[in-house]
Amino acid sequence: MRYKAFISYDGTDFYGWQEQVNFPTIQAEIQTALKRISGQCVGVTGAGRTDSGVHAIEQVAHFNWEHSLPPERLRLAINAIIPPTIRILSIQEASGDFHARYDARSKSYIYRIDTQRIYNPFYYRYSLHYSRKLDIPLLMKTAKILEGEHDFVAFQATGTELVTTVRQIFRVEVIPDLKDPSLDYSLLCIRLEATGFLRKMVRFMVGTLLEVASGKRDPDDLMRALESGERRYVGVPAPARGLFLEKVQY
Amino acid sequence: MRYKAFISYDGTDFYGWQEQVNFPTIQAEIQTALKRISGQCVGVTGAGRTDSGVHAIEQVAHFNWEHSLPPERLRLAINAIIPPTIRILSIQEASGDFHARYDARSKSYIYRIDTQRIYNPFYYRYSLHYSRKLDIPLLMKTAKILEGEHDFVAFQATGTELVTTVRQIFRVEVIPDLKDPSLDYSLLCIRLEATGFLRKMVRFMVGTLLEVASGKRDPDDLMRALESGERRYVGVPAPARGLFLEKVQY
Repeated sequence: MRYKAFISYDGTDFYGWQEQVNFPTIQAEIQTALKRISGQCVGVTGAGRTDSGVHAIEQVAHFNWEHSLPPERLRLAINAIIPPTIRILSIQEASGDFHARYDARSKSYIYRIDTQRIYNPFYYRYSLHYSRKLDIPLLMKTAKILEGEHDFVAFQATGTELVTTVRQIFRVEVIPDLKDPSLDYSLLCIRLEATGFLRKMVRFMVGTLLEVASGKRDPDDLMRALESGERRYVGVPAPARGLFLEKVQY
Repeated sequence: MRYKAFISYDGTDFYGWQEQVNFPTIQAEIQTALKRISGQCVGVTGAGRTDSGVHAIEQVAHFNWEHSLPPERLRLAINAIIPPTIRILSIQEASGDFHARYDARSKSYIYRIDTQRIYNPFYYRYSLHYSRKLDIPLLMKTAKILEGEHDFVAFQATGTELVTTVRQIFRVEVIPDLKDPSLDYSLLCIRLEATGFLRKMVRFMVGTLLEVASGKRDPDDLMRALESGERRYVGVPAPARGLFLEKVQY
């Protein structure tokens, strides 16, 4: 039987989703738990391979499970084994051909930025502190350039080989003051939804947008980067700590 | 010259505000930084001695500073030395007789509770996970019993000796669904404001309220505790991780 799992994690202490020799990763933690429970090796495939330090509000993964333990009991058993910063939110039966990555219609990410002069310690692990003055209307206008179908080859980590680097971005939404009332504190958030993202693509895009909005880069560079595919029009990638995989749509 | 400092900290990795031999505390970190900057011992007095693991959104402290470094430069210098989970938000000149603790008119605390069946990893350090079913109207009604002037002797940590255990609670506000839109997640929050609090008093109160609201304790126990001063009518103190010193009013 194939199962679909919804997973949330604080990525701070992990080397990303994907299994790596000698480094803790989300995938490895879950696979190790499944092995302890079943005695067998169970491969878990995630919808997206989040990078080292990137968080997930709701990652989706699939795996095959032929044991008698029902899904809800299995969820409890896994959560009792994995670190407290990873939580399996639910496990559901899926059709035999469901694939967490290939079946995803779109993914959304949210990037959180603490723009105050002195950062908030409660967002230290979960946002980028960026206190340069930002031109928010320019940020909003420039973000729109990224929407639509483009070749994002300039916005990917080097060393990646892919059949195509064309992706469709459905929206890039800039929310200047998203307030958490319990801390009485606001963050600047950028939410992006696309058919898929290249490696570090969100972080390259957010980094470039921040350089433009703080006056360090020509706003036309974004268009130039999309048209020429040249890296020199793209900024430094924003750090992982501000990035959350928000939702995978099927 | 006397100065007033506003300080925010994630208390997770500290043994509370007050200096202790061989254990990291907020007061000690700031005093050590002041000593490194000035070469002299500078005592820092906080408005409240938050316990081990308790957070502060805005703690207030005072200290004397006779050096030439102006307050804003001093703030930057301290922040460059202390751990990133503590931030000095501002340093202002105060009158020579200003006292952070004795001059405080009231203090407010906020206690955050994650009531979902599976907790959110991003609130793991900053909330109590309490997934028993809660009777929210009963919680709100019972909380009101604590308001007003009472002898809170039953709600303090043992071993404390004080002249009086009478305190005036201005309000106990229950907010059932305080939503952080960037994580699309809601917490149950209890906000308390009083002239002052006894040691662990907020945590004893929150712990007792949760026992009442989950049907584990008779709602009349709160009144009995206030009238008799007997500990047996009081619940287990709620853990430190959910508690934030919110504001000190002068």
